[in-house]
Amino acid sequence: MITLHTWTTPNGRKPLIMLEELGVPYQTVAVDIHKHEQFRPEFLALSPNNKIPALVDDAGEDGSVTMFESGAILTYLAERHGKLLPAQGPARYRVLSWLHWQIGGLGPMFGQLGFFAGQDDNPAREHFMEEAHRLLDVLDRQLASGPYLAGDAYSIADIAAYPWLMAAREKLADTLGQAIDGKPDVARWLALVGGRPAVRTAMAWQPETTA
Amino acid sequence: MITLHTWTTPNGRKPLIMLEELGVPYQTVAVDIHKHEQFRPEFLALSPNNKIPALVDDAGEDGSVTMFESGAILTYLAERHGKLLPAQGPARYRVLSWLHWQIGGLGPMFGQLGFFAGQDDNPAREHFMEEAHRLLDVLDRQLASGPYLAGDAYSIADIAAYPWLMAAREKLADTLGQAIDGKPDVARWLALVGGRPAVRTAMAWQPETTA
Ligand SMILES: N[C@@H](CCC(=O)N[C@@H](CS)C(=O)NCC(=O)O)C(=O)O
Ligand SMILES: N[C@@H](CCC(=O)N[C@@H](CS)C(=O)NCC(=O)O)C(=O)O
Repeated sequence: MITLHTWTTPNGRKPLIMLEELGVPYQTVAVDIHKHEQFRPEFLALSPNNKIPALVDDAGEDGSVTMFESGAILTYLAERHGKLLPAQGPARYRVLSWLHWQIGGLGPMFGQLGFFAGQDDNPAREHFMEEAHRLLDVLDRQLASGPYLAGDAYSIADIAAYPWLMAAREKLADTLGQAIDGKPDVARWLALVGGRPAVRTAMAWQPETTA
Repeated sequence: MITLHTWTTPNGRKPLIMLEELGVPYQTVAVDIHKHEQFRPEFLALSPNNKIPALVDDAGEDGSVTMFESGAILTYLAERHGKLLPAQGPARYRVLSWLHWQIGGLGPMFGQLGFFAGQDDNPAREHFMEEAHRLLDVLDRQLASGPYLAGDAYSIADIAAYPWLMAAREKLADTLGQAIDGKPDVARWLALVGGRPAVRTAMAWQPETTA
């Protein structure tokens, strides 16, 4: 059985989307980061960086496997089930390039903008605003060249980026909302990805009880 | 032939280390980011995010393959040559977890600290200092539990993290230098990785001529 330790944040929703897409059985353990549950010793034992998400699959190929970092989890699930990440060739590395772009760029930079967004007098706000707009332009240019982030096929790169764009539209409406909605290719892609039943279920996920 | 478009920065040295470890033939194209060469149209065609590194292998498994993002490049080279990333099982996903931790955490946060380090009056400086120290503690704890970042074996996770630690020791000596040198397990690991001939060659790489 797969156990996903997660929360209702963008990085936490990525593996939820993937698990719903795969249709495999899984259970969730909610780690309420507002209650600082990510610092509990039981969670640290799974996630040495004290961040969600983390995943344990006790029926992995070679026995039990534990991992952290959303990009690693998406890659694991894709490889284990042979879906949403080509096994080889140019298409595989196009997906991995865009996955890493989300993990190393879009995620941390949108995250830092979220941190500084309310601090009007902080010059860092302007810095992250600029970087976020630059990244949106990169996304828009890419989506103008094909239906999905890594080209013709829906992949774990789309799954990684989608919850961040949705969170930005909602939580950074003042700073990024207009820029996002003003880009037709981004809007088209958000509708395309957001219309998938698996994505809808995962985006609506709420913890019943906390860990 | 493999062509690596790179520069003398931490993200640029990662694929250089990997290529030296593999001992495969390659050529480099220097992209001088101080001269803004990453914004040239020829480079944008390879790297849609306008950042180094980017790699083209015109003798890939299925023909020519082009990719960007250092984490994707390390993964490609490891998979293509069957080295420094186990093909499956728990060890593979341990390496990918720590690789993504570097790409999504250590890299962007040390990078932002570098950006704000000289701005004494900017409150963002303190924020990134705290995060960098937290990440150093995560690294130290992990290296106390085994010789390499992902456990017993040297891997692409070490290759990803090493140039960032070395850059921090040099360029962020005032803010992080003491913290790095004060951690015996980190110091041991830096000596272990830094003693490898491939690492030494790659860390000494300098562009002969710029692109
Ligand atoms: N690069 C990591 C980032 C994970 C991350 O930032 N998780 C956040 C929630 S979206 C978290 O756990 N925050 C709590 C904390 O930082 O203490 C990933 O992609 O998994
Ligand atoms: N996540 C990317 C980051 C790449 C990156 O930040 N590259 C820097 C040099 S270390 C760069 O090209 N900077 C020039 C610029 O931002 O314009 C990776 O790991 O490849």
